Amino acid sequence: MSVTEIKASELDTDQFIARQVAAIKSAVGDGLAINALSGGVDSSAVTLLGHRALGDRLKTYFVQNGVMREGEPERVVELFASLGVKVELVEAQDEFFAALQGIVDPEEKREAITQTFYKKVFARLVKESGAKFLLQGTILTDIDETAAGIKRQHNVFEQIGIDPQAAFGYRILEPVVELRKDGVRKVAQALGLPAALAHRPPFPGPALAARVIGEATRERIALVRQATVITERILAGVPAFQNMTILHEDRVTGMRNNRREFGLQLEIRCWDSVDARTATPTRLPWETLETLAGELLGNVPGVVSVTYAIAPKPPSTMEVV
Amino acid sequence: MSVTEIKASELDTDQFIARQVAAIKSAVGDGLAINALSGGVDSSAVTLLGHRALGDRLKTYFVQNGVMREGEPERVVELFASLGVKVELVEAQDEFFAALQGIVDPEEKREAITQTFYKKVFARLVKESGAKFLLQGTILTDIDETAAGIKRQHNVFEQIGIDPQAAFGYRILEPVVELRKDGVRKVAQALGLPAALAHRPPFPGPALAARVIGEATRERIALVRQATVITERILAGVPAFQNMTILHEDRVTGMRNNRREFGLQLEIRCWDSVDARTATPTRLPWETLETLAGELLGNVPGVVSVTYAIAPKPPSTMEVV
Repeated sequence: MSVTEIKASELDTDQFIARQVAAIKSAVGDGLAINALSGGVDSSAVTLLGHRALGDRLKTYFVQNGVMREGEPERVVELFASLGVKVELVEAQDEFFAALQGIVDPEEKREAITQTFYKKVFARLVKESGAKFLLQGTILTDIDETAAGIKRQHNVFEQIGIDPQAAFGYRILEPVVELRKDGVRKVAQALGLPAALAHRPPFPGPALAARVIGEATRERIALVRQATVITERILAGVPAFQNMTILHEDRVTGMRNNRREFGLQLEIRCWDSVDARTATPTRLPWETLETLAGELLGNVPGVVSVTYAIAPKPPSTMEVV
Repeated sequence: MSVTEIKASELDTDQFIARQVAAIKSAVGDGLAINALSGGVDSSAVTLLGHRALGDRLKTYFVQNGVMREGEPERVVELFASLGVKVELVEAQDEFFAALQGIVDPEEKREAITQTFYKKVFARLVKESGAKFLLQGTILTDIDETAAGIKRQHNVFEQIGIDPQAAFGYRILEPVVELRKDGVRKVAQALGLPAALAHRPPFPGPALAARVIGEATRERIALVRQATVITERILAGVPAFQNMTILHEDRVTGMRNNRREFGLQLEIRCWDSVDARTATPTRLPWETLETLAGELLGNVPGVVSVTYAIAPKPPSTMEVV
């Protein structure tokens, strides 16, 4: 497939939206389509384009995988409701935590989440819906990275184990594939997505599972979710690129009520960066670091130690695993 | 045994030294005595008192356990040579690393080091020397803490598995038992120990074994030793109570030469404290934190991440394990 790039600077959003809406209408006819909304800008733009073209004949699902930030599923469903789009929340936490059980290797964790999403949950939704069209938020960078071997196969059909040739009738539509991230942001805003969401800080695919070192159990995810709420509240006014709260697997010594306690350590990372390719730790004021430590120690059960990452990227990466 | 405390403020060091030298002479007569020097102020004071009383009839050993800071054994031996005291360096790294193999629990690590020191290495030295007198640096605080159940048995005979009753003829001499740490410091300085050593920052008994989370292998100790040299150099001018460099067991993601690398994380702690009972992280300037991170990342192989501890004691402790 050859795709011609539309640069954000040359993008006429009204014209682009009209063209994609027409293309989706023409492809789907009076049939049904389906898509998965992650809350990120790519899938949000596709959801809004698809609903403008198909209305209720596009079934949009938001999969609750159990590793999202506090209130995330509800926030996304409510936001789209306010935009007139019904999103169905699919409860699948048990399936994801079952798949994550016993896995400590970061790549295997990512793989478990991807496989559970595509092969189990989304494959079931596709079959049950009877839809013959899948809308997905592939952007040009995904295709480049797949070709370069940086990213795995982005084709949803392959992910869910369906051979489009054999299962004749299935079609993938990729309405934002000519764009890169900055172009998608413009389209998303033109479709009514609030600027705050269109420009929200990136959050990794494996979500909070990437914020615990070691096994992503229900309990450990709940703990890092609670800690993340605190960090994000305290650092809300800091003009950084991204912040993250990480639960270590290492146990460290602490003391509570004059007794030694082998407890938990949280690591905070807060990054200054332009394009995420290089990054430096934000020079937070000491007052902020001390407030952060105090609030986390006082409110997250079992935490006896808090650190702040001071290494730049490279050789660090922004995410811890 | 009832001991009367001599407060540092009421201590006449010349009188104290004369009394203890006479007591050691009177007890040992023309026999042999033995003692182990750790380099700390208590055992240094006892070594100097014992040599003033007995000269060459006190055999002083420094046990190289493999988990000391860079150059520590040589530094101690040279210092005492300059004070006219011959210290025999006992090479016992293999025995200590064998005892530490496979142990990850911090208390078990301490125990392995203590047991190897007393039951294996020092017990052998006592037997080989033919000495009937042991000099040890017990201070009043050790006795209080043993009585209160905070510290384990401080009696060396019990540690090396010798019943003084059965093995008639062995005697322990504790020449600084009436003093606390501040008193011992005064005596040590009066005996010629340089002030820098008499007032050196505390270093834990298990030494660098307490500065690695998880197994204290030869390789991991070598790495944290190298990192400690760098941290101590960069923080040399900082008027803090203590600093420490810790190797985590957790692996974190980094990148070198554009490739992902699952690497090591170091944690730096630097404490402001008056009496070690409470402590707060030193508010190091950002320039210092960045220099620290850069030097550690650039010079310690495999390290891709550096953090700085921002939690106070309590609920943190000063040492990580």
